[in-house]
This record gives sequence, C-alpha cells and structure tokens, in this order.
Amino acid sequence: MHKKITCILILFFVTLTYSQNKYTKYVKPIIGTQRMGHVYPGASVPFGMVQLSPDTDTIPYAVNGKYNPDVYKYCAGYQYDDKTIVGFSHTHFSGTGHSDLGDFLVMPTLGKLQLNPGTADKPLNGFRSAFSHSNEVAEAGYYKVKLDDDNIVAELTASNRVGFHQYTFPKSEEAHIILDLMSGIYNYQEKNVWTYVRVVNDTLITGYRQTNGWARTRTQYFAMSFSKPFIEYGAKNFEEKQVYKGFWRKFNQEKNFPEAAGKQIRMYFNFKTSENEKIKIKMALSSVSMDRALLNLSEIKHWDFEKAKNDAQNAWERELKKVEVEGDEDLKTNFYTAMYHSFLAPTTYMDLDGKYKGLDQNIHQAEDFTNYTTFSLWDTYRALHPLFNIIQPKKNNDMVHSMMKHYEQSPYKMLPIWSHYANDNWCMSGYHSVSLLSDAILKGNYTGDANKALEACIATANKRDYEGIGFYIDKGFIPSEKSGISVSNTLEYAYDDWAIAQLAKKLNRNDVYEQFLKRSENWKNNFDVATGFMRPKLADGSFKKEFDPLNTHGQGFIEGNSWNYTFFVPQNPNALVEAMGGKKVFTKKLDELFSMNLPDVFFADTEDITRDGIIGGYVHGNEPAHHVAYLYNWTDQPWKSQEIIRKTLKMQYKPTPDGLGGNDDCGQMSAWYIFSSLGFYPVAPGNNEYAIGSPTVQNATINLENGKSFQIKVNNGSDKNIYVKKMLLNKKPLTNFFINYEDIIKGGTLEFIMSNKHK
Amino acid sequence: MHKKITCILILFFVTLTYSQNKYTKYVKPIIGTQRMGHVYPGASVPFGMVQLSPDTDTIPYAVNGKYNPDVYKYCAGYQYDDKTIVGFSHTHFSGTGHSDLGDFLVMPTLGKLQLNPGTADKPLNGFRSAFSHSNEVAEAGYYKVKLDDDNIVAELTASNRVGFHQYTFPKSEEAHIILDLMSGIYNYQEKNVWTYVRVVNDTLITGYRQTNGWARTRTQYFAMSFSKPFIEYGAKNFEEKQVYKGFWRKFNQEKNFPEAAGKQIRMYFNFKTSENEKIKIKMALSSVSMDRALLNLSEIKHWDFEKAKNDAQNAWERELKKVEVEGDEDLKTNFYTAMYHSFLAPTTYMDLDGKYKGLDQNIHQAEDFTNYTTFSLWDTYRALHPLFNIIQPKKNNDMVHSMMKHYEQSPYKMLPIWSHYANDNWCMSGYHSVSLLSDAILKGNYTGDANKALEACIATANKRDYEGIGFYIDKGFIPSEKSGISVSNTLEYAYDDWAIAQLAKKLNRNDVYEQFLKRSENWKNNFDVATGFMRPKLADGSFKKEFDPLNTHGQGFIEGNSWNYTFFVPQNPNALVEAMGGKKVFTKKLDELFSMNLPDVFFADTEDITRDGIIGGYVHGNEPAHHVAYLYNWTDQPWKSQEIIRKTLKMQYKPTPDGLGGNDDCGQMSAWYIFSSLGFYPVAPGNNEYAIGSPTVQNATINLENGKSFQIKVNNGSDKNIYVKKMLLNKKPLTNFFINYEDIIKGGTLEFIMSNKHK
Repeated sequence: MHKKITCILILFFVTLTYSQNKYTKYVKPIIGTQRMGHVYPGASVPFGMVQLSPDTDTIPYAVNGKYNPDVYKYCAGYQYDDKTIVGFSHTHFSGTGHSDLGDFLVMPTLGKLQLNPGTADKPLNGFRSAFSHSNEVAEAGYYKVKLDDDNIVAELTASNRVGFHQYTFPKSEEAHIILDLMSGIYNYQEKNVWTYVRVVNDTLITGYRQTNGWARTRTQYFAMSFSKPFIEYGAKNFEEKQVYKGFWRKFNQEKNFPEAAGKQIRMYFNFKTSENEKIKIKMALSSVSMDRALLNLSEIKHWDFEKAKNDAQNAWERELKKVEVEGDEDLKTNFYTAMYHSFLAPTTYMDLDGKYKGLDQNIHQAEDFTNYTTFSLWDTYRALHPLFNIIQPKKNNDMVHSMMKHYEQSPYKMLPIWSHYANDNWCMSGYHSVSLLSDAILKGNYTGDANKALEACIATANKRDYEGIGFYIDKGFIPSEKSGISVSNTLEYAYDDWAIAQLAKKLNRNDVYEQFLKRSENWKNNFDVATGFMRPKLADGSFKKEFDPLNTHGQGFIEGNSWNYTFFVPQNPNALVEAMGGKKVFTKKLDELFSMNLPDVFFADTEDITRDGIIGGYVHGNEPAHHVAYLYNWTDQPWKSQEIIRKTLKMQYKPTPDGLGGNDDCGQMSAWYIFSSLGFYPVAPGNNEYAIGSPTVQNATINLENGKSFQIKVNNGSDKNIYVKKMLLNKKPLTNFFINYEDIIKGGTLEFIMSNKHK
Repeated sequence: MHKKITCILILFFVTLTYSQNKYTKYVKPIIGTQRMGHVYPGASVPFGMVQLSPDTDTIPYAVNGKYNPDVYKYCAGYQYDDKTIVGFSHTHFSGTGHSDLGDFLVMPTLGKLQLNPGTADKPLNGFRSAFSHSNEVAEAGYYKVKLDDDNIVAELTASNRVGFHQYTFPKSEEAHIILDLMSGIYNYQEKNVWTYVRVVNDTLITGYRQTNGWARTRTQYFAMSFSKPFIEYGAKNFEEKQVYKGFWRKFNQEKNFPEAAGKQIRMYFNFKTSENEKIKIKMALSSVSMDRALLNLSEIKHWDFEKAKNDAQNAWERELKKVEVEGDEDLKTNFYTAMYHSFLAPTTYMDLDGKYKGLDQNIHQAEDFTNYTTFSLWDTYRALHPLFNIIQPKKNNDMVHSMMKHYEQSPYKMLPIWSHYANDNWCMSGYHSVSLLSDAILKGNYTGDANKALEACIATANKRDYEGIGFYIDKGFIPSEKSGISVSNTLEYAYDDWAIAQLAKKLNRNDVYEQFLKRSENWKNNFDVATGFMRPKLADGSFKKEFDPLNTHGQGFIEGNSWNYTFFVPQNPNALVEAMGGKKVFTKKLDELFSMNLPDVFFADTEDITRDGIIGGYVHGNEPAHHVAYLYNWTDQPWKSQEIIRKTLKMQYKPTPDGLGGNDDCGQMSAWYIFSSLGFYPVAPGNNEYAIGSPTVQNATINLENGKSFQIKVNNGSDKNIYVKKMLLNKKPLTNFFINYEDIIKGGTLEFIMSNKHK
C-alpha cells in the first residue's frame, strides 16, 4: 500500500514536472539581452513586482551634469557582451529605451571586504565579479551564474513581491553579502534622494530608497531576510558632501550600528561559510512602507529555494499555456520567449493587502482589482494590450482599473502617458491610454464604469496645455514652431480621437462621437498631397519648406521619419489610400518603403535603429510603423503583407542573445511577434477587426479565459509556403483578409491553407 | 424673554472673556526673544504640534560646507533686534541651543512678484518686509505684526495641529501669498532632501518637506487651505543642479501646474484684494502623510479667526490657572510667561486619529496615550518634568508612554537622549530619560508597565558602545583619552544610575538596585581630593595633569567647567560634602563659586554664556548647575541658598525681550523659575524631596489634577525680606528645609514667614 502510493506520487510528480515544463522550457530570457533588446535575463513571475536580475554595469546617466549616451545600453542593467556582473538588483524594466530602477543591488563576495564595485576591466579591484555565459543559466523565473572571482554560485528566483537569492559559497572565514543602496539604473549622484536601512535583528533588515529620475519622486521600500544570521555588519556613506554630521558620532555608525540613513550608502553583512554552504536571501518590495514590505515577505514563507523556483516556473507555465503552438524548436523558443516577454509588464504595484501608492503620493486601498504600474503605452497600446484582450482579459481589466485610478489620483487629471511607480514621466507622444480603454471596453473586458472611462478619455484629450493639444484642438494641427514632434503628435492624437469616438458611440454619446470623429480626421491637415508625405505645417498653415522624409531629426516626428509615420492612419487606411491617390499609388509607396536602401548616414544620425531593425526603410525595431506591414490588405496585393511579415518575423526575431531587432518595449515587440506568427494583427485597436498576415506556427490553440478555445490550423505551411491561399473560419471560407474579435472569443477554428505562390 | 436671554448671554460672554484673560494676559511671548533666550514670539497652544511664528532671518547653518556660527542666534527663527521678517513658518523649538525645523514659510506680498527673500539691509529687494515692534503684538496663542513694505497686517493663531493665518491686505490687483519650501532653521542647501506639493483645487494644497539635519531623516507633511480661491499660482525650482529634467518639459510646470517636486522650491499664489480684505490660511501638519494632514485640518472647521484665537487663548488659560499666584505685575508677567514657556514642549506628535511616525520610520497607532516629541532631556529632566509631575501628571504620563514607544521602536533600543520628530539627535550627555521615568513612576504618575520601563532604563544604561558607557561600566569612569566630555558623562551617568536604583528598589528588584546604586557612586572616581574638583582621569587611573577648573574647553565637561560640574552629585550631596572635607569646606567652595569674578577671557572663550547668565562663577544660563544654589541646604547655612536664589530670580528673569539669561531650553529655565518663585526645587528627581529656597510670590495656589489644591502662603515677603524665618506645613512647623511630594499632592498649605535677616 505504502509502496503503491509512493509510486503514484512519483508518477504524479514526474508528470507534473513534465507538464510544468511543456512551454516554460522554451523560454530563453537571454534572447534580446545583446545590443538593443534591452531585456533582462533574471527572475520574475508574470507581471511580478520583483524583477531580480544581474546588472553587468551601472554606469551613470549623467557625468558632471551631462547626459552620458552610453547609459542607453544599460536600460535593463545587463548587456550580453559584458564580462562582469556588479550584482543582482530587484527592479528592472523589460525592453525600454529609457530607464530607471535597479533597486537594492546585492552581491556575495569573499575575502577582504571591498565596498566599491570596481571596474569592468579590473573586477578584482571591487566587489563585482567576472563571469562567463558558459556558467550561466537563464530560465523563466530562474537565473544562475557562477561568479568567477570568488567561485560563488548565484541563483535567483522570485514570487510576485519577493526576490529569492541563493548563494553557494566555498569554505571561508570572510564571506560577505554586499547591499548597495547607491547603485541604480540610469543613476547619477543626485538621483538618490535618500536611503534608509534599519537592522531589525541578525537575519532581518528593512529600508527604502527614494529617487529622483525618470520617475520624479519614487520611493521603494524593502524587507530583506537572511537564511543565516550575519556575524557582523556595517554601513559606509559615500556621500562626498555630508554637511550635517551632528551628534551621530556618538556611535560608531560604520559597524554594527542598526540604522543607516543618507544619500550614498553601501552595507555589508559578514558570515563564515563551510564548503558549498548556501546562504539564502529573500527580499520583499513595497511601494507603501517598510512594514508592508515585511507583510509582502510572507509571500514566501519557507527557505526551500527549489520550491520557490518551481512555484515561479509553474506560474509561468499557467500563463504560457494560454497559447499552445506547434512548430519547430526555434519557433517554439521564439514564441514562448515572446509570450514571456509579453507577460513581464505592466507590473504589480500593490501590497498583499491591496495597499499601494497613488499618483497623488498618498496611500490607497485597491478594492476588487490588482493595481499595476509600468505602462509603456506609446508602445503597448498597439499589440500588447490587444493581445491581453484575447488571452489576458481579466488582467487587462485590472490594468484599465489601474489607469482609471491613475486618472483619479493624478494632480493634473490625465490618464497615464508613460507611467511607473506612482509617477508619470510623459515619455513619447499621443495619449494612448484612450486607445487601451476604448479597446478593452468595446471588447467587453472592463468591469468598471464605462462612462467614467469615457470622461477620463475626454479630459485627457482636452488637456490644452499638454504637448500642443490646445493648438491641435484649435487648428486641427500643431504648428511646427510650437513642437518638435508636431506631426507625430497630430497623427497619434487623431488615431486616439477615433478610439474615443468608438467608445462614445458604444455609450450612445453622439455629441462626443461626432466631435472626436471629426478630430480623428486631423491627420489630413499634415498630409501634403504634393509630396504624398505627412509633413510639418507652420502656424500660418503652410507646409514647412525644408523637409526630408527620411530624416528622423527636426522633421516633426518622434523616433521615426515621415516615411514611417506617413502610414500612420490606422483608424482609416482607406482614407489614406484615397488621399494618396488610390490603391496603386499607395501600393507603390508601401513597396518603396519596404525596398529602399538607406544610406549609412541614416543609421549614424538615428538613435534606436541599426540595420538589424530595418527592412528597406521600414523600421521594425521601433513602434510607429508596426501596423504598416499589414496595410497591403487595403490594396489589391495582400500577399505583399504576407511576404513582409514573414520577412520581418525571420529577420527581427531570432532565438539568440541578439535575437531582438530593437527594444522589446515592455512586450510590444514580442506581442507583434505573437500576433504575426499566429497569422493576424490588430491594425487599429478600438476596432474589432484583425488584419491577416501569414502564420508561422504549424498549429495553435488559444485557450480563452471563458473556457472556450480558438484553434488555428495551418495546412501546408513552411518557410517557402508563406502565402495564404485560402482561409476557412469554422469551416466556412473567408471572403477577405480580416477576422473579428467575436470570431475568436466565441471559440472556433481558423484554417489557413498556405502556398508558395500568391495568386 | 428674548431680551433677557441676550442680556444673560452678554453677561456670560463678558464674564467668560474676563475669566479667560485672568492669567493669559500676563504671558509675554516676546520675553526671551532678544539674544540668548531663543524662544519664539509666535502662536502655539499648550504642547501644540504647530508653532506658527515669524522668522526674522533664515541664515544658513553652513556655507560651503563650513559651519556658520552666526546661525546660533536663529535657533527659534526670531531675533528681537532684527528689523525685517522673512515670513511665518510653522515649526519652532522653544529656547534650544541647537536647532532644526522652520517648515513651510508663508509670506504675503504685493506688487511685482518676488520669489527671493531679499536681504535684511534691503528688504524691498525680496519678499521679506521691514517691521517694527511698535506694530507688533505677541500674546499666548496670538501674534500680530504690520509688514511695512506692503502695509499688510499679519495675524497668527493656532490649534494643536493647525496654524491659522489672517492677512489684511490693501486694495491690490497683485496680491501674493508666497509659500517657501526651501526656507528652514539651521538650513543649508543639502538639508532639503525633497519637497513636494500638490494643488488639489484653487483653495487647497497638500505637500511635504523632507530634511536631513539635526533630525537626520524627518518628513513633515502639510495641508494648506485658503479662505479665498487663488487666481493663479506657480512654482520655481531654485536647485542649481537639476540633472534629470526628463520629459517634464511637456508641461509648463512653472505656472498653474498642479504638482511641484524637487529640492529647492518656492511657490506663489495670486489674488486680487479689496481694501482691508482679509485672506486667511489654515495649514495643518502631520508626521504621517498628506492625507492625515488633511484630516488634521478638520481641527478648525471654520474661518472665524477671532474664534480660533479665543479657543487658543482659552486653552492657555486652562493650563495657566493650574498655578494661581499673587504678586506684583512683573512677578505675574514673569511667572505666567514662565508657565507659558514650560508648556510649549514636548510637542504633540500624533494625528487626530492617533497615527504617528515612530523611531523605526514606520507609522504607528497610539493606543490610549498622546504621543509627544521634542524631548530636550538633558535640560528638562531637572525641573520641567518634575514640575509636570505636580501640575501636569497626565501629560507627563503620556510623555513617558511616548518615551517607552521611542525605546520599543528604536533600532538601537535606547530611551531617547534628545529626540524630535521620530529621530534621536543624541545631543548632550547622560541618559536622563531614566531620571524622568524613575521620577514619574515613583510619584505614581505612570499607567504603563513599570517593570518594562525599568528594563528600558537598564538597556539604555548598558549600551556599551554609546558615549563611553562601556568604559564607565568597566572602570567606573571614562578615560579622558576616550571622550572629550568624560567627566560630565560619568557624573551624569552616576546620577542617572541612582535614579534607576530608586526605581528598582520600588519594584523590588534588589539585584538591579544594588548594581546601580554602586554605579551611582562612580562620581567619586573623578573627584580629586587634592584639588577638591571633579577632574578628568586618564586610562591609567591617574588624573589628567593639565587641568583648569574654570576652562570650559577640553577639560572633560560639556557646556560647563569643573567649577560648575564639581557640585553635580544631586543624588547624594551629603557624600559630596564629606568628600570635600565636611560642611565648612563645602560651604566655602559654594561661596567661592557664587562670588568669584570671572576674567573677560572666560566669556570670549565660552559659548552659550554671557555676563548676564552668570552669578560669580555660577552659570545659570546653562543647566548643569541648576540645583547648586539649593545645596546650602546641606550645609549649616541654608540662608545662603535663599540669597542666591533671590539674586538669580532677579537677575536672570526679567519681563523684557532680553529677560532670559540663557536659552530657555524647552522650558527648563522657566521651570526653574516656577519652582524657585514658589519656594522649593527638586534637587534630585527620583527623590520625593524638594529643597526649600525663597518664594517671590505673595501667595500661590497649585490646583492639582486630583482635585485637591496646595497653597503657598507667604507672610511678610518682600524684595528685602528674602530669608525664610519659619515654615508651617499644614500649620505644623517644619524642622528642616525640605518638603515632600506627598505633602504637595495630598493638598494642604505651606506657610512661609519671611524676614530681612537670616538667623
């Protein structure tokens, strides 16, 4: 009897382990860590508050007050080509093109205590360590590396709010854990506004770090628990100018003093270790207080690292299996790594009891929703949130709730532009929250008050003193004299206004509908019929004379040129086709975009872009034209979309460290991959239509939260058979290259019959 | 009927007004604002969180990182000799000799907006204003001044947590209220760690100021409400080096932008005013959050300034009438001003709902007590808290509770040394919390767990790594090589240890009693029989060779010299008499102290002391020898105490702006006055005995909280009749010059028969 149960248990365990690894095993977090991907290889759970990951360098954002362009490489703290690791910090953005975070860097060392990080060329001179990729393992929810300097093996995993470290030490009388409160991503000396640490007892410390960076006023609290008591500890304040030292000299505050406070502090904790002894650390975060961080620490109650790792990987498996794809190993690797990257942000921003810091810098209680932050909306409104509307509708609902709370708590009463950690950094153009709200509500995925959401959209779109909105409202365009990005703003506002109009229509607010539908045509004001390009206009209504549609600087566009932005009328491609002079002209223009040969000077002058991220003149490595490959569906040659999409999937997504052709941008780049490899894409969120591309999966099943499933069957697909010869939706032939949200969400089957020839 | 009621109401009102002013009218907050008193003339209620007062200058604590000794004048923000007022800020220490605070400076101006304060010699060049004392009124809970530059009348009053401003403007199209978040007392550029303001609507703003000064890590939150909507507003960041400006340029953040955040911010709010229009402001404080500051704002729900002022003055009257004295006008002025100064600190540190920030920087809920901060214990354990044990036992109980919470929440598990605003600044010597706890418990005024309190005392007294305690425990003295204030620390620790022993005895902890009683004799280790002075000892046990009992520098004493500290054995004057060689020698030594003529070089070399604060070589302007005048009671010539005390009362306390001979030190100097003018003094808190001096009141009634009263009758007292010829306690002659706590607290009468001759 006993034997039998054991057998069953073993069988069950094996099965479980097997099933757990069915999709998670394809996740390769190392993909995109080289060059421009800006993702991090460390441990996180889906939408987790903690992103515990190695930082290979922490070079300053500014030196002597001057921006240091090299910092850009370190948006995620890690660059694959680096040879050293400075330490393991707890917060990271995934794939951004500007940055912040990198809180609470932890590093194990041996021997003589070194409280400076040292330099990459001489790691032995500091606490950083050399490492090699051959000793590195990066999985979903798990990271492992051997730190060569001291022969310490570091392992990381995480729950939502807790980072779990496991360090395997050699035998040593002088083992240290460094806690660096100075370190950070996009750091500079003045960024650390304040840090504080309290040593509660010999296995527990609490504290916080308050910074002034991309998030202007951000405080991250922590509680840090050690599996083994430290023997002694200390703190050193590296601040050059400590004017007030007061009466604190009454204690020796550098050693075994249980409180440290200042702007530039590093701490150390000393141990004696036996051979292969594991010292484990759990660090919980909170946006509210040290007390709440302690509460959040209870998320992992044990010291079993393997169990924590399994829990993290099971959490990934649960999310990843929402789309089950068949295909070759590379495809599965790309697909599930893209799924992984799509589920890293937005991030949880709420304690276990629902408390969180709001935009008003007060503490709030989340009622019946999970509060999220890290909204890289200029990127993610395009495909990531539309993807969530299919495979993560409940979380997307929570995200909309979070954005509404942002609006309510915002001193300026606006929906988020680019928000993180109770701040808006207003990065990029447009007010794309409205697209996200509109799309979620129109798709039935918002449980809140839709009319309030509409009001929030209207208030945001009417914020006259923000980024040219007043001019846009009054003139229908933004004078080039008034804004360096006048055209992209006008184009994006126009799309956003269309999204507002769609929501208004649904809510029977015809006045709003009419008003915003009219505004959504403002793109026409920047369209120069003579050249066929979107072009900046001066206040007097004339087009700006000096104009180069290839140039990305000073032409009225943000992170793009007119060639890419001219196609930005996702809300009404037919009108754009017409404005350009009909389908033929439009087709020719698209052909030119995708086939031109850019001069080298273009790359030298243009940030964020390399030849890897380019197909002709089309920049896939950045977002503004992400929908453009699908626009052939509005011409007579939809097969060209299929060609370009397959080309893009192949060129821009590879299962290698340099596999991402541009910043992953909090999952947008990956969401494009997921949609496109499944064969369709949301050209205009807010619309229920998806344009068809060319699937690369062999077959796929989307397991919907409503219990239904949508199956994608691909017949005769291959690297050569890239053209869609025929499509059957629930066995009925499709007459055009579009499917609807309802087709998917009610479950069913979409069958592609592929061919190596377009008709 | 109606008429009759009106009449009664009027009568009632007149009576009430009259009775309200019975004692409060004698309070002259201007006393001590000149030179060394370091008190502030502005508005506060007893033990109030808010001290709303004019700052006549805010010169920096340090210039280019170097301490600026002139800042010392501005410990309370106000110096009587100054000709200009910079503005009105909300937090001030009363009478300290080091400083902090000065939060949220508000200033009304007219005409062209000036966001710099200007200089004292050219007030028109900035927002500060000239003023004159002829246009100034300072009362308990009320302050008024005409600001000459713009002819604006400023009036201030306060409740516990709310500062109430009333500004009477001329007619103007350009009236401004400036809110200066940079300004502060003992300020320096790096002190402002962060400030934040949110404009909630056109009559309400919230925010906070976070500083790194005497309190290392302090955050003060506020909510500020205007009686009239501002037309427009703005903020300017004066930070020289703003490295990260990010994407915030998307708004014009200097004007009408509802959020300001940075390190050096001033704001303005614009109005149009009619002739004599009053603009009122209520600013509430909180240690917890902006939300709680809003909650605290509800403490004053109306906009009736007169009512708020009356409420504040009634609050004072309630406290002041706890001691009703008869005497001439000057005596009453001195007495009630001393009472007023005695009730300004400790200050309330708790929101309306009982929430407060603890030493651990977490938010706590006060259960069944009021949490206080601002514990200037080296000063106030001597006479202020002993006074509270008689006339404010409930509040003293709350103060002990607050100190116990400090202990529990302290990372270093010590009772407070000098604590304010959730920080300990460890200023001065000794660990005098233990005296306060012992005295309160022995007198039956602590409702908490006395055994826990004893544990806290023991833990504090055994903190080996604090200020030489380890040496003190091991050797019985602190080697001069190890501490610059080795002797005063040993003397004070010895007294404190005696206080611990008394508490232990009461709690039947004989082991503790024996141990600490033994420690309380450690003063003997620093007593040099050969010279008759307390003298620093070297580690080898020999006395330090170079030794000057007059010098206040480098001799082993803090803020004093050996002449003053040699008499610091309050716990056992008889033993000191004996050690010195008997009563004759001791008397002679006291005589010498009180009659010597100090050379001018003494004053030039000694901080905190002027000839005004000196009687012979006795320094009354500082605390270490406050009990010494009473020590003749341990000789055969008690009448000499009476002489010296009368001399001190007359010389050191005058009803004039320069009337205080030294820092009032959070009420200690005033508490000395109150005791001494009533005729007795607590030489050794922890003892139930008071030594007799020479009363200056004609008669007095102490109205005790237990409903009883203790009457002091003075027969034949006058400026000449300073000697106590006879005393009757409840009609029975006293046989010595001591009375007990029990004598007072059970109610009764103490009758002095005075004479112009000592027997």
